[in-house]
Amino acid sequence: MPELRRGLITQKWVIIAPERAMRPSDYRTDGDEALRQPLENCPFCPGHEHMTPPEVYRVSDGKNGWRVRVVPNKYAALTSYPELGRAGVAGFFDRMNGVGAHEVVIETPDHDKELPDLTEDHLKVVVDVYALRLRELMKNGWHRYVLLFKNHGSRAGASLAHPHAQIIATPVVPGDVRARLHVAKDYYDRKERCVFCDMLLQELHEGQRVVAEVDGYVILAPYDSRFPFEIHIYPRYHAHDFTAMNEEQRRGLARVLRQALGALKALLGDPPYNFVLQTAPNPVPRPGKPGYWATLQYDYHWHIEVIPRLTRVAGFEWGTGFYINPMPPEDAARYLREALEQG
Amino acid sequence: MPELRRGLITQKWVIIAPERAMRPSDYRTDGDEALRQPLENCPFCPGHEHMTPPEVYRVSDGKNGWRVRVVPNKYAALTSYPELGRAGVAGFFDRMNGVGAHEVVIETPDHDKELPDLTEDHLKVVVDVYALRLRELMKNGWHRYVLLFKNHGSRAGASLAHPHAQIIATPVVPGDVRARLHVAKDYYDRKERCVFCDMLLQELHEGQRVVAEVDGYVILAPYDSRFPFEIHIYPRYHAHDFTAMNEEQRRGLARVLRQALGALKALLGDPPYNFVLQTAPNPVPRPGKPGYWATLQYDYHWHIEVIPRLTRVAGFEWGTGFYINPMPPEDAARYLREALEQG
Repeated sequence: MPELRRGLITQKWVIIAPERAMRPSDYRTDGDEALRQPLENCPFCPGHEHMTPPEVYRVSDGKNGWRVRVVPNKYAALTSYPELGRAGVAGFFDRMNGVGAHEVVIETPDHDKELPDLTEDHLKVVVDVYALRLRELMKNGWHRYVLLFKNHGSRAGASLAHPHAQIIATPVVPGDVRARLHVAKDYYDRKERCVFCDMLLQELHEGQRVVAEVDGYVILAPYDSRFPFEIHIYPRYHAHDFTAMNEEQRRGLARVLRQALGALKALLGDPPYNFVLQTAPNPVPRPGKPGYWATLQYDYHWHIEVIPRLTRVAGFEWGTGFYINPMPPEDAARYLREALEQG
Repeated sequence: MPELRRGLITQKWVIIAPERAMRPSDYRTDGDEALRQPLENCPFCPGHEHMTPPEVYRVSDGKNGWRVRVVPNKYAALTSYPELGRAGVAGFFDRMNGVGAHEVVIETPDHDKELPDLTEDHLKVVVDVYALRLRELMKNGWHRYVLLFKNHGSRAGASLAHPHAQIIATPVVPGDVRARLHVAKDYYDRKERCVFCDMLLQELHEGQRVVAEVDGYVILAPYDSRFPFEIHIYPRYHAHDFTAMNEEQRRGLARVLRQALGALKALLGDPPYNFVLQTAPNPVPRPGKPGYWATLQYDYHWHIEVIPRLTRVAGFEWGTGFYINPMPPEDAARYLREALEQG
């Protein structure tokens, strides 16, 4: 019997249809032919630094090389520009200039290492760089929201195999993010508690959807998972702002990221996936405007969503915003716990 | 310079980034290896009727065969069930039974013909069957919304090559649909005019995003296109309910569908695509409940969204609900007009 589920945060229904379920091994994918290319063409490999736009940040390896580099995206979706040019078009439509920023974080010089293959120390440096670049981009008042995400594998939208994440700063807070902020604020206004903190307490108490608890973080297969093996990583402590993590919290995140992505890899081979950081919007007000977003951010609770791309989004999902997921999150969590125990 | 755009209906921002644009020929795809299989395994081919669940409807070919068949989906996402079982879970989550229906419309006995290859008469029969099955499923008061959609090609989520559409009846009106209904109602309350009718007038006046006007229908590349070559088909007349079309209107739709899909095919080879019908929810009230949805439906204006799946949805889109589209709809409309003139 399929089941419809709705969580508190996205407020969207998901159909859990286990009749269509497969075993984890049926989802296994190894290798990604579409991204295979001669190493000499890879713009992110050491020695090819001239193939990227000029670097905006680097972490040195202590010798002549680097451990992590940050460069502007060569095909930027948004760019810096002196004015926003908000305007109505024909009374019906809104437009503005594509003001913002689009950066690439090259996470390792090693073309073939994925995040879970990196050492904990190296991953800690990667997390440091994520936070540092986000903070830097949030200094610009045009940047209302700064999104960190990663596309791994061609089916997840990556066009290059070399490990990298992307950061896009947008001149508006995206609608889906705004909707979540309002849910968190409404809940806080009623209960004086964070909706995410409450949900984590409940999930830890119940246990069946918890994959692991690591160093102050929780890996969870959410109740309303849209995709097979979707997992979320939450700080166990309340924190609205990813960029405000201290040293120890960043080290904890490196460790939990390694475990979460390592469990997916152990179970599913080398699955294509997206990860997306959900964090509070930039509180910096635009010149002359009150800091509206500042009032919304403290009730939020940052987290990372990891979405393996094992099924295809089709007409039904486009038409309704409803997802059909053949893998109950309770089963996904159990499989991932087993993978962690064996790893 | 990229541009941000937002339309009136979905109220979501889209980044039009023509710096990343390619020519239509760069998007061409021919053939779909992933769906190639021996014809004797195709459950939708004539002679294999025993491979599907028992037929719920058929249009005879006047001899012993059929032109169109409707069968329940063998792997149904939702099924009939005597009770909905709405309940809260742990105070946080909502659940209900997966009550609904899931049907497949096998659009032709011919494995290799796609919709634009069918005769106008045959397509008219297909449109008749779409409307008839929707109307039939809307007789059931549990079915709050009935969605018609089509996945063509493996990248669009199809698992079989033989031409078919799907119909899913859901026990709730999906959030994305509800949001659009409210936009239409708000606009009507303020102006006493339909937002879609006004938008069509404006677009026809301006012309640059109009692909064609055919027999009372408009093919449009929407201002806030999320995908390259996304097109919408609107009736030029106000109509909230797809199933209320008369004979002549259904013939017109067959003709415009053939043109729209034919133009995509001429321009792009055999692109994977989804089409999705956006129509008013079922006004039939549940037993003992007032007909809330009836108050929302008359301001709506049904239409079909056709979404070629030429680019991949990646982390940025998942994280924000924002889309990045490298093909300005003005260019897409021009290419498609040229393809129609040459066809």
